[in-house]
Amino acid sequence: MRTFPMLLRKDGRRFGLFGVAFAGRLRDMLAQQVWKSPRHAFGGALISLTDATVKVNTQTRTDPAQGKAGHIALVGAGPGARDLLTLRALQRLQEADVIFYDRLVDPDLLDLAREGAQRIYVGKELGTAAWSQARIDRMIVAEAARGKRVVRLKSGDPSIFGRATEEIDAARAAGIAVEIVPGITAASAAAAATCHALTERGETDTFVITTGTCRPGDAEPDRALLARPGTAIAFYMSVEKAAKVQADLLAAGAPTTCPVEIIASVSTPRERRVETVLADLAETVRENGIVNPAILMVRYPKSLARDIASKTRSAA
Amino acid sequence: MRTFPMLLRKDGRRFGLFGVAFAGRLRDMLAQQVWKSPRHAFGGALISLTDATVKVNTQTRTDPAQGKAGHIALVGAGPGARDLLTLRALQRLQEADVIFYDRLVDPDLLDLAREGAQRIYVGKELGTAAWSQARIDRMIVAEAARGKRVVRLKSGDPSIFGRATEEIDAARAAGIAVEIVPGITAASAAAAATCHALTERGETDTFVITTGTCRPGDAEPDRALLARPGTAIAFYMSVEKAAKVQADLLAAGAPTTCPVEIIASVSTPRERRVETVLADLAETVRENGIVNPAILMVRYPKSLARDIASKTRSAA
Repeated sequence: MRTFPMLLRKDGRRFGLFGVAFAGRLRDMLAQQVWKSPRHAFGGALISLTDATVKVNTQTRTDPAQGKAGHIALVGAGPGARDLLTLRALQRLQEADVIFYDRLVDPDLLDLAREGAQRIYVGKELGTAAWSQARIDRMIVAEAARGKRVVRLKSGDPSIFGRATEEIDAARAAGIAVEIVPGITAASAAAAATCHALTERGETDTFVITTGTCRPGDAEPDRALLARPGTAIAFYMSVEKAAKVQADLLAAGAPTTCPVEIIASVSTPRERRVETVLADLAETVRENGIVNPAILMVRYPKSLARDIASKTRSAA
Repeated sequence: MRTFPMLLRKDGRRFGLFGVAFAGRLRDMLAQQVWKSPRHAFGGALISLTDATVKVNTQTRTDPAQGKAGHIALVGAGPGARDLLTLRALQRLQEADVIFYDRLVDPDLLDLAREGAQRIYVGKELGTAAWSQARIDRMIVAEAARGKRVVRLKSGDPSIFGRATEEIDAARAAGIAVEIVPGITAASAAAAATCHALTERGETDTFVITTGTCRPGDAEPDRALLARPGTAIAFYMSVEKAAKVQADLLAAGAPTTCPVEIIASVSTPRERRVETVLADLAETVRENGIVNPAILMVRYPKSLARDIASKTRSAA
């Protein structure tokens, strides 16, 4: 359920000399008073947030990088919606000289960066001439070593399936300062989108994020261990593995009736949500043409285990 | 490691007629030009974000609640740092007529709300005259039923140990529109603070959030299942249960040398971080006087399992 309209829209953006921002009712009056070019030293883009207004600086940096120590920020872009960015992530985008971003990051987010910042698409799309992780590691370090403020913008939270460790290790090996700016991970956004919490008192006390896609040659996560009452499991990058996920959980004893929510492109205009049960997971993915990015959320509430136990007893 | 200073400080806030915001170098010049009272209809507080500026509206709402449908937003306040709030959360604070907040929410965050918004502390501190969950449910519904825009501000992500389901059910039973605004959960903030990702390619493919504190009478989560190679486990509200967590994981076969990070009051000025190993978890908590809110992060990397297996083989 989406109770509120998305208020951070492209058409809600406007520009103003000296960054003058009028809140509330003046908003619509000002909407078309766009001050386009040349950008004034203190000009700024204003992203309307209804009553709140975020002023985005578009000026060219006045303190150039020369002679300064560079650094790298691995910044969580969140699940997709621009307004699920944190204030800290916005700040890092504003400070950046160079931004490396990949295919899951909405290009709209890049509008929030300084106009003068370099934006570099690093792909990582399967089957295309994508950048390898090693090349990304080398490039972010090389730019920071030149004194640049580097943002590596990653969808979701960089700490969760974000290959952060490789980039942190590369930065440290080169003596470059590095930080992680956390982001809203897709499972949190999915819980918000479905209005269905990840933990529920008396029902689910353990929440798991795991993946269907491992490094080639690596064993897949041990799903048998996850098929326990009281657990909610978010499977990331698992659409192609839906049949295997289903079979593994059922084989480990999870009931066929475990509720499943499938949330694709969460928080974006392309968001889709489908509900099913574990026995129909793979079929539902196939029939609905679900593709990544999507979360498969499988829940095994304690009450379901109790219901089954009670039915088994009365049948005996 | 904190590479960047916190830039969202109380003293970085300032006020300006018509919300005029000057970025960059004008910032310090303007710092003391505080326009205090009476608040102009379009006056606003400016929270400096270095080059980015967030304009916070302090005007009284011009569209009163009468005759309007109320609604409830369960808003994630994030782990504590004000700049880890999302833009959407900021927007909801700006729109709110009434804000119900509890003890883990930094009162600084409430400065971001409209001046006219009512702020109600609902406590939930053990052993004090706190509000019961049922009373909170009733109150948020009662205010929304009067046409108010209600924010229930919760630390972290409302979907994770946030009692969201009770409040959603109460809202729905009364026919009130309700939404969740996701927040940065403490484990993500802890990963950022320690610069140590929650999943690591080849090492940890499964990330678990669980608790040491269940509903009275409920069985504790089955920790034996969590003691598997490839898993990182964030224990929430578990400081008092550190000895039990340690004993359960060791009994289930987790190595004594599993690395453990303890992160208290993550992202706040009171943040503390301690590293230890599983065998010393309880002792480390005790010796360092760690109290909640704190995350106990236990990791069982795949390489640790391989190392132990290889040592066992060479000893045989």
